[in-house]
This record gives sequence, C-alpha cells and structure tokens, in this order.
Amino acid sequence: MDERTREHAAVLVEWSARVEAGDDVVLSVGPDAHELAVAVAEELGERGANLLATYDSGEVTRAYLRAHDDEFEAPDHERALLEETDVYLSLGGGRNTSATADVPGETRQAYRSARTAVREARYDTRWVSTVHPTRSLAQQANMSYEEYREFAYDAILRDWESLAEEMDRLKELLDEGSKVRLVSSGTDLTMRIDGRTAVNSAASVAYDSHNLPSGEVFTAPYGTEGEVTFDVPMTIRGEPVRNVRLEFADGEVVDHDAEQGASVIEEVLETDDGARRLGELGVGMNRGIDRYTDNILFDEKMGETVHLAVGRAYDACLPDGESGNDSAVHVDLITDVGEESRLEIDGEVVQRNGSFRWEDGFE
Amino acid sequence: MDERTREHAAVLVEWSARVEAGDDVVLSVGPDAHELAVAVAEELGERGANLLATYDSGEVTRAYLRAHDDEFEAPDHERALLEETDVYLSLGGGRNTSATADVPGETRQAYRSARTAVREARYDTRWVSTVHPTRSLAQQANMSYEEYREFAYDAILRDWESLAEEMDRLKELLDEGSKVRLVSSGTDLTMRIDGRTAVNSAASVAYDSHNLPSGEVFTAPYGTEGEVTFDVPMTIRGEPVRNVRLEFADGEVVDHDAEQGASVIEEVLETDDGARRLGELGVGMNRGIDRYTDNILFDEKMGETVHLAVGRAYDACLPDGESGNDSAVHVDLITDVGEESRLEIDGEVVQRNGSFRWEDGFE
Repeated sequence: MDERTREHAAVLVEWSARVEAGDDVVLSVGPDAHELAVAVAEELGERGANLLATYDSGEVTRAYLRAHDDEFEAPDHERALLEETDVYLSLGGGRNTSATADVPGETRQAYRSARTAVREARYDTRWVSTVHPTRSLAQQANMSYEEYREFAYDAILRDWESLAEEMDRLKELLDEGSKVRLVSSGTDLTMRIDGRTAVNSAASVAYDSHNLPSGEVFTAPYGTEGEVTFDVPMTIRGEPVRNVRLEFADGEVVDHDAEQGASVIEEVLETDDGARRLGELGVGMNRGIDRYTDNILFDEKMGETVHLAVGRAYDACLPDGESGNDSAVHVDLITDVGEESRLEIDGEVVQRNGSFRWEDGFE
Repeated sequence: MDERTREHAAVLVEWSARVEAGDDVVLSVGPDAHELAVAVAEELGERGANLLATYDSGEVTRAYLRAHDDEFEAPDHERALLEETDVYLSLGGGRNTSATADVPGETRQAYRSARTAVREARYDTRWVSTVHPTRSLAQQANMSYEEYREFAYDAILRDWESLAEEMDRLKELLDEGSKVRLVSSGTDLTMRIDGRTAVNSAASVAYDSHNLPSGEVFTAPYGTEGEVTFDVPMTIRGEPVRNVRLEFADGEVVDHDAEQGASVIEEVLETDDGARRLGELGVGMNRGIDRYTDNILFDEKMGETVHLAVGRAYDACLPDGESGNDSAVHVDLITDVGEESRLEIDGEVVQRNGSFRWEDGFE
C-alpha cells in the first residue's frame, strides 16, 4: 500500500473525525476507494471503534433509481443505523464521475426528498467526507493518475494544526467585522457580516469542518450589493459554467449572465427566494491546492481564491436559533483573487493579490 | 451485463427473498460482486423496495481485526440497522478466498461473540446468501472463469418451483418416517428422525431456505448409531480434509479418524457436547451441481450426495420450543451416494445409487 494512503487514513481518523474507542463508525466506501477503506479499517481497529462499511456505488444507485417509479419511501433501516452512529466517514472514489448522468432530475429530487431524515441523522454524527484519488477523478481533473495522486495528497496531507492557527486569524477578523468588500477584475461587491460567526474549516469536526481536504474560512453574508464575476471554470449539474456574473441589490441577485452555462445558473436562481441571496462567503487558504480540478471538494479550498454560494447558509455561521438563508440549494461559485484583487474588512485590506496581511510579500 | 447476472438477480429478489414494495433491504456486496449488485438494485427499484448497500470485504475485515486488541464491543448501530431490516441479501464474491487467512482464531472468535445480537437480528430478516461467480471462486474450484460461470449459473438458474415439488416428496417421507439408514462404502449408519420436521430447502424464504443455490432436504436426526465415511474432499477452517470416518454409539461420536485433516476434526468434535452429536442430515438434490468445488454453498446441495453435520440443529426441524442440538459449531461433511449406496426410511429404500424411487432408472 502507498504510504500516503496510510497517512490519509490516519489524518481522517485522528485529526478529522476524532475517533475514540467504542465509537460506532459507518465507513461509506466508493467502488475504487478500497485501498483507503483498508487503511481506515486498520486505524479504526487500533482505536477500538466499531466498524460497519457501506457501499456507495454510482452504478448501483443509477440502476436502482432508473428502475424506481419515483414514489420513494423514507428508508427506516438506514435512519435507524445513522441515529445510532457516532462517526460517518465517506470515502468517495468511483470509476466514472458521470455514473448517474442519465438519472432524470425529478427522480433525484424525489429520492433526495424521501431521504431528508436520513440526511439529518447523518449531519448529527461526526461526519467527514474525503476522496481516494482514483483514475476517474484524475480524468475529471485532466491529469495523469500519478500527477493527480501527487496533487490530492498535497491537498490532504497538510500540517492541519498550523493551518488551523493561520485560518484562525482570518476567522477572528471576520467575527469582529461588519462589512466585507471584494474587489477584483469584474468584481466590486460588499456584504454585511455583523452578527455572523465564521467557521475555521480546518478539516476536523473539532472545528465544525467536515471535508478532508479543507482549508477555508467561511461565514454567512447578507445585504449584498454590487457585482461579482466568477472566473474559475466549473461544472454545475453536469453543465460547464464559465465567467458567471451576478449583480446584487438589497441582498438579492437582480441581474446575471454567463459566458457559458447561463441556463443552469438561471435554473439555480429560480429554485426559491433564498437561491437569489448569498448563503456563504468562503476564503480558500489551502496552498496545497494549486489548480482547479473541477471538483468542489478541492476547488473551493484553493489558496488565492474566494467563493460565494447562492442559497442555504450553514447553521454554524448564524446566531443561535436563527435560520438564515434556508434555500433548498447551495451552489458555490469561485473567483481567483491571486492578481489585482483585494479583500477588505471594514475598510482594512486583509488580502491583496492573494497574500494575507500577516504573510511575507503583503504590501 | 451478462444476461445470466440479470436472471440471477431476478431469482434472488423474486423467488428467494420474496421482496415486496416498501421492504427495507440491506444488500451486502462483496468487492467483486458489483455486477450482481447493480442487477439486484434494478430489481429492488422495480419493486419499490428501500435499498442500503453494505460492503463485505475480507481485506477490510482483516485490517480491522488484526489491528484490534480483541476486546470487541457489540456494534449498536449495526444491530439497530438489522432490527429495522426486512430483507438481507448477501452477495458473496471477493478477490481472494483466503483474504482473512492470517487473522488469529481467537480474534475471529472474540469478534463473532461480540456480534451475537447482530447475527440474531439478521436471522430474523428474510435473509438469503448467494455468490456472484468471481475469478477467485473459479480458482478455488480449480476451474477457468468461463467454466465456473457455466457451473455456477447451472446451479443457480434452476426451475425452482419444479425442484421444490420434487423435494417435497422426500420431505413428506422424512416427516412421516422414524428411522433413516444410510448404507454406502464405509458407511452403515442409522438415525432417529421421529418428531422432527424436514425442511424443503428450495432456495426461498417461503420454504425456510436461505441459500441460493439450494436444493437439499434436511432434518435434525438423533440417536445415531454406526459408522459413516465422508468421501467428498473439502476444506474446514482452512485445512484440507479427506475421508473422515466417524463412529457413533448412543448418538455420540465414539471414534473418528481421517486420511487428512484429522486434527481439525478433533478440534471441531471437542468444542462442546453437541459437537459430538449430529445436528443435520441433508440430502443433496440439485442436479445442476455436478462436481465438488470446495464451497459448501454448492457442495452440500449436489445431486447424489448426502451430508451430515456435527453440531447445531436448525430450529425449523425441531418441535416447537425444543432447542435440540445447540452446539456452538455446525460443520458439514459430505458423502457421495451415486454408487453402491442406499438411503432407507423405515426399511424402505428411498434412494439407490443416486436415483430416487420416483425417478426413471430407480430399481
């Protein structure tokens, strides 16, 4: 086994999920994530946790969904499982990232709706999502397999403790601040953040962070004004999307266009009221991620990028009891802030041309 | 997909497990049983059942067990899952039938003991075990992959309804009978069966039968006298076993030897009191299985064989409330009755040289 696979498993179990003896763990295994599953199982055995592995195959799901009549029932057995689960580890990694491409949207939506209780029970566990670098993910990233493995492990095997400390600086500034301004090519946007709490997403449940890799600081903005252009290419609902431009007034999108994928953006914005307002402002701080790979798990954490999501806000960012943006969607869009850009909090520049003010090279 | 894989899935879901709309189904998938899992998922979707797939990997289990300190706890989350499960379908099929060969026996035993409640909850479902014909199973059977697939599907894709009718004839004779005598080369054995109920194991939960393929009629004998030689070669606990001979008096093994594997037989017989008494007399009636493949799922159902198990009896064979042989083990041993053999019930020959008395060629 690749030594990096073992290190990945150790980071996931120790740093990310904080697994302890006696924890009831569900390990969701993608069809090509077998090697990582073996390494994680060893870590779980060492810690005396209980292990149940589930099989997360896009091909199995596709066959099931396409054969179904769309009258889905809530799966009580899966809910019962997750209600007794302490830790849920998702090891993504299939053989084809388009394995479910021909499942109709209404079927997906009906299935998703029937699984609300299952999903909520899962969110109540110490859940962490990661991916095993597979050939299919390499293909999606337009990289060779070896190159992709280098890339993925650079992103995953960080010194998380030290990155968490650095990210805490930004979190403090955001927590204390009232107003954020983002200026870049095609972008001049202001957002209110007073009363909101930033999450230091340091790839650990101890930080309310559920992705490995992570490496972003995010909060839930409101009262957005101005315009923003997202120049990082990505795929949304199977459609390539390029250079989306959104214009906000009074917190809502009032105008939008895109070089490519305008119709999918239109579809997203029309979902509900919340879909026209922002739910997230995130600042990517993982410098192990040095290029776009069309995989949101990596892209939104990339150093020198800022992302905004239209739709749902994370509860962790909101005052206790407040529900914030409760849209049914949450769609991230990313902009490169490496050049001719600045991020201001209450008029003070925090990041300029990709460098934070506590870093060498900031001017 | 091989059309036979689809047929296999249909037999499993329809005939074997009698899946209905709304059933909560767990699909346990071996690492190389993916194709069958896809076909079964389609069948489950068509029927409107709920699907959760679990991942049954020997390599994951090995890594977990070897790293563990042997102080296993009962996994509450898995028990909760199975208590809410209606149907449990196990699709065996790994890449190496020896994947857990280096897990110490005491570790297996400790793990097994901690999982008693999980196992009991599973036995309370409509559970069915089958295998997807994999290269590793072909290797175990000493066959090429294509040859093994022919073999496996011949065994699995029977006309189960008609075989169930034929097996019912033998079940009736065993239910009405008091004493069975088996005579063959190196074998002259009598067993009491009065008060016991035979199971027509027709590969369906509707017949109290939980294996696909199946095709055997079995009951729970007692008061065994005489000697028996098991000439079908097999592997028990990783050890090859050849020509085991057991001698019974007053229902108990009083002498035993073997051409090969005597020590593992000794180990089995010493487990507890029940391990020295029979728990099962089974008559193989699946003529789709025409050779030994060192896989008990197939071997014990082979036409023209009889098997006896030392150890635990199945509850279904016993009068209500009676526990019968409750040994911790159940080890099957098989003898070929194709030549110079006869099976008598209360003095009447039911099977001679492999032919039943209702078959052409019986004399």
